[in-house]
Amino acid sequence: MSAPGDILVDTVDGIATLRLVNPLRRNAISGVMWNKIAAFAHEVGKRQDIRTVIIRGDGQGMFSAGADISDFAEVRSGEGNARAYDDVVESTCRAVEAIPQPTIALIFGGCIGAGSSVAASCDMRIAELDAFFAVPAAKLGLGYDPRGISRFIRVFGAAATRQLLFTADRLSALRAYDIGAAHLVATKTEVEALAVELAQRISKNAPLTIRAAKAAIRALTTNDAALMAEAHQLYIAADASADYAEGRKAFAEKRSPRFRGE
Amino acid sequence: MSAPGDILVDTVDGIATLRLVNPLRRNAISGVMWNKIAAFAHEVGKRQDIRTVIIRGDGQGMFSAGADISDFAEVRSGEGNARAYDDVVESTCRAVEAIPQPTIALIFGGCIGAGSSVAASCDMRIAELDAFFAVPAAKLGLGYDPRGISRFIRVFGAAATRQLLFTADRLSALRAYDIGAAHLVATKTEVEALAVELAQRISKNAPLTIRAAKAAIRALTTNDAALMAEAHQLYIAADASADYAEGRKAFAEKRSPRFRGE
Amino acid sequence: MSAPGDILVDTVDGIATLRLVNPLRRNAISGVMWNKIAAFAHEVGKRQDIRTVIIRGDGQGMFSAGADISDFAEVRSGEGNARAYDDVVESTCRAVEAIPQPTIALIFGGCIGAGSSVAASCDMRIAELDAFFAVPAAKLGLGYDPRGISRFIRVFGAAATRQLLFTADRLSALRAYDIGAAHLVATKTEVEALAVELAQRISKNAPLTIRAAKAAIRALTTNDAALMAEAHQLYIAADASADYAEGRKAFAEKRSPRFRGE
Repeated sequence: MSAPGDILVDTVDGIATLRLVNPLRRNAISGVMWNKIAAFAHEVGKRQDIRTVIIRGDGQGMFSAGADISDFAEVRSGEGNARAYDDVVESTCRAVEAIPQPTIALIFGGCIGAGSSVAASCDMRIAELDAFFAVPAAKLGLGYDPRGISRFIRVFGAAATRQLLFTADRLSALRAYDIGAAHLVATKTEVEALAVELAQRISKNAPLTIRAAKAAIRALTTNDAALMAEAHQLYIAADASADYAEGRKAFAEKRSPRFRGE
Repeated sequence: MSAPGDILVDTVDGIATLRLVNPLRRNAISGVMWNKIAAFAHEVGKRQDIRTVIIRGDGQGMFSAGADISDFAEVRSGEGNARAYDDVVESTCRAVEAIPQPTIALIFGGCIGAGSSVAASCDMRIAELDAFFAVPAAKLGLGYDPRGISRFIRVFGAAATRQLLFTADRLSALRAYDIGAAHLVATKTEVEALAVELAQRISKNAPLTIRAAKAAIRALTTNDAALMAEAHQLYIAADASADYAEGRKAFAEKRSPRFRGE
Repeated sequence: MSAPGDILVDTVDGIATLRLVNPLRRNAISGVMWNKIAAFAHEVGKRQDIRTVIIRGDGQGMFSAGADISDFAEVRSGEGNARAYDDVVESTCRAVEAIPQPTIALIFGGCIGAGSSVAASCDMRIAELDAFFAVPAAKLGLGYDPRGISRFIRVFGAAATRQLLFTADRLSALRAYDIGAAHLVATKTEVEALAVELAQRISKNAPLTIRAAKAAIRALTTNDAALMAEAHQLYIAADASADYAEGRKAFAEKRSPRFRGE
């Protein structure tokens, strides 16, 4: 029987950390977990107190083994089933991408299959030196959702995406860093503290500036005109915000600004 | 007189290797050779037994010196001639890009001018440490086909493409690796074995998964809606394939799958 | 009171060097300076004798501190003011991008805010080892112009653009080089000579080939159909040029060509 797994969310100092928890399956993401990730993603944007989101696997062994392949005979075979399954993965990844706050994937160990898709749905990736990405579809023979391939191209570039999909080999965190797909690589001992430090630095910055910039970047990289219109409104709104007045005042007074997201 | 040159193709263990052979002209690509490359590219997709294609220069000295410039006074001057010549290069490169199997450029020495275009038409690039790319158009004064420039941008990025075209300098294999345009760089002694090993690993994977993924990547990077529709059909077909059933079965039985491309 | 600042332009051996000069404000770009940069950019394309343009900060301390934030209470607050200000920055950056000759940003020290935008508007970036890029909008709370974000994505990629905008941290020249956004990094002692050497190499190449290639690259990276039509005309024109005939002749005679841009 499949391990249902769960997600855990805790919030400290404006930083929400979502953990993929499925210890019997190397943090593979079950149907229950996809739904909970999506629900979290839809809700977190309303939380003014949350400035940054970290997504990680539970423990320090594995980001996520991806989908639970031992379930595939049951839940992802037959055309209807396969499409429905891929739709759940894709809609959850889109929900993660649409989180208005900056999102950081903190990666220990493997980011496999749909685990890579979740990590690629985050804004930034911080990984320990031995971490890796892998997409084993070609070892299993399934069709890989073109929408997921599009996401990999946006994050890893077309060249590394070909390598991931054609070879099913690992792409090391260091290589991901080289080509710009990971933002920071550090030792297993240090990487968590560095991710939290990064989240703290971002959390002190002006939320409306960041929200507007994130919307613009998403709109530009997905060629989404409706989202660009929204990004433009957010840009105008940031300029009219109390935070911008506070930012100028703090600059003039040579002190750190206190932003409230208003 | 121009050296006509030739191509050589041999197939071993599901890996077809195409060699550019023009020893008197550093493997420059003559009109005859362009036509033969295109013919090969159009035919190889029908060969179920061929899983991966390697394209290389004959010998270990040169990928290709590109077009044979000593011919240009005759074959690429006057507007009609120049356009016709560029059309042959472009249509051949597109035929290479459209090869449904994964393609690997194995690069010794220089990849010059149209030689760079052929290498850029492959899915992956594996190069020896002293290999390089160069586009000497600005040393010759000709107009460089915007369709070829588009290909360089897809593979090298806009920044390195400017460098290649404005300076006509060499872009080293190592720099190409840094920016993600080459997938592997190795010593001259080792690079060929590594390329074959990579081709073998790819050849053991599920052909329908790879074919669908390649079509999707091509469609996404060239913004080709018709090709994306085809990629979507291939994705559906892979999920309905006997290979996917075999993949799940092998996974359950903890053995290596035997994929047949069906 | 704001320091008005100025720009200085000198031309030596076909290389025009534009200096951002505002010593009291770390070469911040004042309204006067934006207008002068734009005027230079509009005029320089008519100068047949100028083959390459270098843009740099005056001295070896700073490329540019960007906008003069101490002015923002006055010149970039209130919706009308903010939009008008951003329009000046954007239209100037577009004018720099539209310079038909190749442009090189020579970067000492910081490239901050709008300073990064000017550097990103150039074709190539050469930086000293301690140089860096930074976009401090999120420390100030303002809305960042999506058109400027689009430019950063084109040059730095989406991943580094998120890092720049969300963190407001520095992106080092070395990291920019790693991800392909800078073309060369060298010591403070050597970098200027290397930039001039690069400009000289480009200046010896065929201007019409380069102009056509630059137009094509701009058209392809901004998806601009009108510009692509222009690029296509320039491509045809280069093939019909006296320079192309000279290039073939020089090749046959095994001597260096003398290009005149005709």
